[in-house]
Amino acid sequence: MDETVFSYPMKVRDYECDMQGIVNNAVYQHYLETARHEFLLSRGLSFAELTARGIVVVVVRAELDYLRPLRSGDSFEVTVQARRQSRLRIEFEQHILSAAGQAFLRARISAAALDADGRPLRSSGLDTLLRVAEA
Amino acid sequence: MDETVFSYPMKVRDYECDMQGIVNNAVYQHYLETARHEFLLSRGLSFAELTARGIVVVVVRAELDYLRPLRSGDSFEVTVQARRQSRLRIEFEQHILSAAGQAFLRARISAAALDADGRPLRSSGLDTLLRVAEA
Amino acid sequence: MDETVFSYPMKVRDYECDMQGIVNNAVYQHYLETARHEFLLSRGLSFAELTARGIVVVVVRAELDYLRPLRSGDSFEVTVQARRQSRLRIEFEQHILSAAGQAFLRARISAAALDADGRPLRSSGLDTLLRVAEA
Amino acid sequence: MDETVFSYPMKVRDYECDMQGIVNNAVYQHYLETARHEFLLSRGLSFAELTARGIVVVVVRAELDYLRPLRSGDSFEVTVQARRQSRLRIEFEQHILSAAGQAFLRARISAAALDADGRPLRSSGLDTLLRVAEA
Repeated sequence: MDETVFSYPMKVRDYECDMQGIVNNAVYQHYLETARHEFLLSRGLSFAELTARGIVVVVVRAELDYLRPLRSGDSFEVTVQARRQSRLRIEFEQHILSAAGQAFLRARISAAALDADGRPLRSSGLDTLLRVAEA
Repeated sequence: MDETVFSYPMKVRDYECDMQGIVNNAVYQHYLETARHEFLLSRGLSFAELTARGIVVVVVRAELDYLRPLRSGDSFEVTVQARRQSRLRIEFEQHILSAAGQAFLRARISAAALDADGRPLRSSGLDTLLRVAEA
Repeated sequence: MDETVFSYPMKVRDYECDMQGIVNNAVYQHYLETARHEFLLSRGLSFAELTARGIVVVVVRAELDYLRPLRSGDSFEVTVQARRQSRLRIEFEQHILSAAGQAFLRARISAAALDADGRPLRSSGLDTLLRVAEA
Repeated sequence: MDETVFSYPMKVRDYECDMQGIVNNAVYQHYLETARHEFLLSRGLSFAELTARGIVVVVVRAELDYLRPLRSGDSFEVTVQARRQSRLRIEFEQHILSAAGQAFLRARISAAALDADGRPLRSSGLDTLLRVAEA
């Protein structure tokens, strides 16, 4: 894997599996979000602090391809690559991979920062976020 | 709204909101799944029974456009329209709407039925599922 | 059932069931919380507004007796009875019941209001909450 | 801490925090369950395998004392001590602790094994489970 790709190790928790014995499809978004926030944290940006400063970062579009189901006991890596998508949006390309590099899921997540009234934000807060994506 | 579109009423639960005070992005997939299963149930097909019969129905691709965040106290409708996408796949087009018809989210969810070994299934079980989508 | 007991109708969602095919034990606390918040709302008190005013209401103790597992498709009622437990605490007695009155779970939940620094709160906010419990 | 106590390290994920900015009260049961299953796994017993063999292990009673809220970014340990409570029940004593040993939560969780019809189980499966608690 490219050394410049951020990667966060996780393991399936049994309550995340549904009656089919596989990880429920919504849970993958939890994995992806957790890895994105750890990615931001690794670059000095805390989601909780952004929130405390009134900067609301929301997902505006998600595309997820479920390639192979995760099951109880599985360990995996969640990767994050960020790039500026437009003046107001960041796009995250993410993969969920086994240690052997086998793909469970790939996703494209677009996010935008909003102010307290839900309007797109071009403040220094967003610039900070965007610089992270460009670093 | 088209009378032939299935619609299921729901209401935000406070634990579904995250520290930003809005419904967490993964939770919308829970709403969509719940409405799909109620749609199948309304056509006589129980997800739990399918599972008990060894038919695993999985989401293979999800596209979600988040248009406006849901908040504590919001009531909404989740719509479901199903169509056969290929010999082995069903596509669900879904919307999350306010009572006034304002859209919070729109989604395309593709699902396939697998047998116990994870192979695409062309059994009578799948046919049942596909007939539902065509009814 | 006593007419003065608040009761909130709910239905199991399939993603709430774990690989055993029964509702996961943590999910019952979600049901209980949702019913408590609806109870407060029915008395004019919004949890989201309390939060916005800086009043943090936390569970300090929970006792849950799991009597019979809920399964996919089950409908149920969640009851709430509140009483002042001490100068700083409210106790909620709650049951999860089938339409026929069969009990799935009974619980005692103690809650306290805290200020932003995590100290017990004796403000007008708490008094409002306590009056609800005494009404 | 007693060396014989099993301990599992975890970290708060942001989606586990609710609009109050603290971990939602139900999520602690997810942490406790995850640590119990890892404890069983460390003794050679897989929850998923038990389930596949038709042994349903359910929580029958939970007592939780919430001592201090977990927040975004917090790392913690979840401890597990198991003992046979009766001929048919295991009791788990569990704590959630900071690295410095400060307690966030303490809990007593009683569990029983049931067969497919929901009756208490005295099979070799349960004996296996009970032996783990006595080891």
